[in-house]
Amino acid sequence: MDTVCLGIDPGLARVGYGAVAQSGFKLRALNYGCIETSPKMSFTERLLRIYDEMQTQIKICKPDLVSIERLFFGRNTTTAEFVYQARGVVMLLVAQNNLPVVEPKPNQIKLALCGTGSAVKSQIQGMVQKFLALEEIPKPDDTADALAAAVTGLAFKIPS
Amino acid sequence: MDTVCLGIDPGLARVGYGAVAQSGFKLRALNYGCIETSPKMSFTERLLRIYDEMQTQIKICKPDLVSIERLFFGRNTTTAEFVYQARGVVMLLVAQNNLPVVEPKPNQIKLALCGTGSAVKSQIQGMVQKFLALEEIPKPDDTADALAAAVTGLAFKIPS
Repeated sequence: MDTVCLGIDPGLARVGYGAVAQSGFKLRALNYGCIETSPKMSFTERLLRIYDEMQTQIKICKPDLVSIERLFFGRNTTTAEFVYQARGVVMLLVAQNNLPVVEPKPNQIKLALCGTGSAVKSQIQGMVQKFLALEEIPKPDDTADALAAAVTGLAFKIPS
Repeated sequence: MDTVCLGIDPGLARVGYGAVAQSGFKLRALNYGCIETSPKMSFTERLLRIYDEMQTQIKICKPDLVSIERLFFGRNTTTAEFVYQARGVVMLLVAQNNLPVVEPKPNQIKLALCGTGSAVKSQIQGMVQKFLALEEIPKPDDTADALAAAVTGLAFKIPS
């Protein structure tokens, strides 16, 4: 029986998502992509779009668990304010669908995929492509990051 | 015809809410209180509780508009992370109910109620009690703050 993890890279302008099915040691990408919202939309319209489109993706892949990257901001608190609110909408969806969730930190994702917490973005993207046997690196970066979160979520699951 | 504004003081452990009806120059409090979530609940359960209970309050007062205080954090970014996510859930509800929203800053609430952006908490609470002819100051502070946001929302509405 496959285990499906939906990885999410939260944001306001772009929310990456990527579902990965695990069967034994084999990983396979299911639906993946990026939800985009325009700055021309109101903030509440953007949240609604994220909610509705992410709900659609959950229905498509029927995940066993969700892996949402933990976000860290330095001093850019204005970005943080809006991105965290968008992340809250995604976390609500997780709760409404009664799904288990893991929240890997960026360095945990790097460690899970590349064996080092200090891996650079191109290394992660290369490992996503390799693990999932994709013809090319998924674009934009948010999509690749979401798939990396999904793979990490499945790795996290093993000890539990 | 009354105009009803639902004021919300967002948070994770406590979300204050207070509906105020305006009829000419007269203001009247409708339903008000505070949604509390325990740290013993998971983060996603807390978001779900906030969503469900706030939806109930919206159904009770059927607001014409919502006034949600804008939050500002200094260096306490850990609190900010969770409180902003909870605020995102409330903003989503506003969008799902297709309600207009105003987002007064703390100093705008002080200015609207007390005539000065540097008013202290006890002044604001006293004015909330006075404007709404309440027998006592609503408790906890989050409830009084939500009613203050509602009064401010109605004041904001006048020029539009």
